[in-house]
Amino acid sequence: MTDANETPLREAGSTFLPKYTSDGLIAAIVQHAESGEVLMFAYMNAESLAATRATGRAHFWSRSRGKLWLKGETSGHYLAVQKILVDCDQDALVLKVLPAGPACHTGAPTCFYRELGPDGLSRLG
Amino acid sequence: MTDANETPLREAGSTFLPKYTSDGLIAAIVQHAESGEVLMFAYMNAESLAATRATGRAHFWSRSRGKLWLKGETSGHYLAVQKILVDCDQDALVLKVLPAGPACHTGAPTCFYRELGPDGLSRLG
Repeated sequence: MTDANETPLREAGSTFLPKYTSDGLIAAIVQHAESGEVLMFAYMNAESLAATRATGRAHFWSRSRGKLWLKGETSGHYLAVQKILVDCDQDALVLKVLPAGPACHTGAPTCFYRELGPDGLSRLG
Repeated sequence: MTDANETPLREAGSTFLPKYTSDGLIAAIVQHAESGEVLMFAYMNAESLAATRATGRAHFWSRSRGKLWLKGETSGHYLAVQKILVDCDQDALVLKVLPAGPACHTGAPTCFYRELGPDGLSRLG
């Protein structure tokens, strides 16, 4: 449901009014709180956002497994959330975190370990 | 279409195999190339990604308007793309950019100008 007052309230207000997709998800960008490196990208639903805020550890919604996902639950590589930023229209979050280990399941420090060039991907670093 | 070889190829290969959603979109995180600040979050489709790579200016897909969107086309606040990073499963991009002006349509330097606290949102800076 939208009305004429919704956009100004979302953009300028101090009320948290997350705009979930029709699937109940909000985009979550995970950034290293100190280096500023973007570590990973995932989605949260209301439940995972509430669990993140309650515990200080990043929880997401696993679209592939269809369940709540505590990042690090098997690896121990938890993400300690220092801050959560919200964008203008409240459909995306930035989580500023201190990671307990590599953020990527491949073992790389960040999921964004390749650069796109004219001829394809090249590994960074 | 998926097969057993798809995941390793996507994660370890040098071939760009973007994984679009069923709507034909890929997540695009825009980060300042120098400060590391996350500036905005949007989606691209194959057309906007191709236009971005061809021109060096960030193009997105406007879900609200249902059309190709050259960021800055009305404001002049183009985003000059320095690098494009790709994540492990190739369903998200980081665009490292130099912005010609405020990245947010509200006039803020970044769309992420508020922090989520226990009692709601507070403006940063």
